[in-house]
Amino acid sequence: MSRFLNKKYRGLEVYTPGEQPQDVPYIKLNTNESPFPPAPKVLDILSRREIEKLRLYSDPACTSLINRLAELYGVLPQQLYVSNGSDEILNFAFMAFGGKDVEAAFPDISYGFYKVFAALHGIRYTEIPVKADFSIDYRDYCHLHKLIVLANPNAPTGLTLSVSEIEEIVKTNPAHVVVVDEAYVDFGAESCYPLINRYPNLLVVQTFSKSRSMAGARLGFALGSEELIDDLNKIKYSTNPYNVNRLTLLAGEASVDSDEYYRDRCRKITEIRSYTSKELKGMGFTVLPSKANFIFAERKDIKGSYIYEELKKRGILIRHFTAPRIENYNRITIGTLEEMNILLNQLRIIINRK
Amino acid sequence: MSRFLNKKYRGLEVYTPGEQPQDVPYIKLNTNESPFPPAPKVLDILSRREIEKLRLYSDPACTSLINRLAELYGVLPQQLYVSNGSDEILNFAFMAFGGKDVEAAFPDISYGFYKVFAALHGIRYTEIPVKADFSIDYRDYCHLHKLIVLANPNAPTGLTLSVSEIEEIVKTNPAHVVVVDEAYVDFGAESCYPLINRYPNLLVVQTFSKSRSMAGARLGFALGSEELIDDLNKIKYSTNPYNVNRLTLLAGEASVDSDEYYRDRCRKITEIRSYTSKELKGMGFTVLPSKANFIFAERKDIKGSYIYEELKKRGILIRHFTAPRIENYNRITIGTLEEMNILLNQLRIIINRK
Repeated sequence: MSRFLNKKYRGLEVYTPGEQPQDVPYIKLNTNESPFPPAPKVLDILSRREIEKLRLYSDPACTSLINRLAELYGVLPQQLYVSNGSDEILNFAFMAFGGKDVEAAFPDISYGFYKVFAALHGIRYTEIPVKADFSIDYRDYCHLHKLIVLANPNAPTGLTLSVSEIEEIVKTNPAHVVVVDEAYVDFGAESCYPLINRYPNLLVVQTFSKSRSMAGARLGFALGSEELIDDLNKIKYSTNPYNVNRLTLLAGEASVDSDEYYRDRCRKITEIRSYTSKELKGMGFTVLPSKANFIFAERKDIKGSYIYEELKKRGILIRHFTAPRIENYNRITIGTLEEMNILLNQLRIIINRK
Repeated sequence: MSRFLNKKYRGLEVYTPGEQPQDVPYIKLNTNESPFPPAPKVLDILSRREIEKLRLYSDPACTSLINRLAELYGVLPQQLYVSNGSDEILNFAFMAFGGKDVEAAFPDISYGFYKVFAALHGIRYTEIPVKADFSIDYRDYCHLHKLIVLANPNAPTGLTLSVSEIEEIVKTNPAHVVVVDEAYVDFGAESCYPLINRYPNLLVVQTFSKSRSMAGARLGFALGSEELIDDLNKIKYSTNPYNVNRLTLLAGEASVDSDEYYRDRCRKITEIRSYTSKELKGMGFTVLPSKANFIFAERKDIKGSYIYEELKKRGILIRHFTAPRIENYNRITIGTLEEMNILLNQLRIIINRK
């Protein structure tokens, strides 16, 4: 830290991303990437001709991609915002819709970045405890009069709220924005985005990183009322108007055109999730009922950190968190069936050696 | 704008990027893109195999690219920061190094985004008038005790300060950061980055957008003391850790490996700049002595806006600004020799018809 840094940022505790080893042959089940490549159309569209055009700026309005997303979701282009990953949107949402007089609220067990965003923008926040079974009681968020941020499915638990529960939260907080982070919604949960036509205070955030196999392309989007989208654009055009690069925009368009491909891959992932959960339960693990592309599991008699370390030694990366209440758990991304079988075999060895 | 938007952002006047028409066959001389494609190595590295890997996150630490840049510039990796376009760095620099008690200062004629960044972060700022010939008097910035932001070469004039003048500014403002925005430095100006080893308050910002033909890839970087770079990382890891996508990182690495290619293209551009300037002067234009990949020119007897409009009708886009003092000028990006000859011919027709 330099002596020039603005005082208000000196105490920042930054977000720690999952390990991203480069070119090491790990079975990587730690950051919820898809085990499947992007759709063939995505591979085809990034041609030499398009790469040559990198000399030209991208379209700051992202018009073509936004039009396709609008058609896919049946909303107006003005109800869509496209971003350099969904973290950008979450950051802008805290910045725009929180404030000195507007506190934030989110579950105590959720995406660890929410409190970082809040702290960065000097927004006071409340972490509302999830229940003993890690589920969220939607009633804790009704009439709260705060900026509310909920991951649905929640991370790292994979548990969901129903659309009607979300609607109740949105309806009872009409003077505040409710951000629903649907990064994992395509793996079996129901999106609440149709509600944006009725509630001007609902912002739904999605990403191409997980279900669309494009974590490395950095592409997220938000659905919301025209006014909320307008606010996000105001921040974008005051920070980084060319936020999404040319090749990512093209890949995003080809991805939207390949919806069937991705639906099929999501189905496969949910099947592998069921299989893996069943096997883990058979091995004595507690496994939360996940609707995401990961599962959250513990074996009461073996330390979560021990399982994490032992798997890492064996070339398998999963995610371990040290926060209270969840420190005995591990979050395991759903990979291919082959990867899951290797994981299960290694876990059997680790358990038997204990 | 929604009623939910934080009061402090309601009055924001956002930045207006240059026109970016998509798929319209303009001769595009309005946003300082390179007329040359990226180096062959860049085209080769973005293979199908790499595109398949888009399913994986990029390296948030950008290690491989930073190591190559460190080697190219002869600095430590810890003295480098890599970003999603140089606008991201400028935004972070205002955020980190300005503040309630730290005002900013920059020339009244310069990159229009500086005042947007300042306003966004609630930083008071002074626009210091450039001289009648549009040059910057470095003495205006000595002992100023403010966050100083200077484009060198300056935009849209193309005029430069010498490294010793920059050093004087940096030396006489030891308690404040001096940001030198060198977006256009590779076209004949001298970079001041060697000074970072002696001055902990100097941050030098460069980009792959112009001289490296990668505007559409979104890649910028900063050189500075380890502490300043650490501050930028603090902001990055509190907003968007995966700020640069996989393909852009790869393209950046191949670009650094192709330094000779880009030096050659920069030489070509400076030759075409000399030729175009000479021709324009022969046609009665005043042309500032530019060290950038654009020239700033006027004909005293013809309105700048008229020339801009007439060229646009003829399929040639240049950049016209409406600010006082420069409203009779136009900024013209240096394209290929062929494009410049078309421009010159059309200008002759426009002038003769007047």
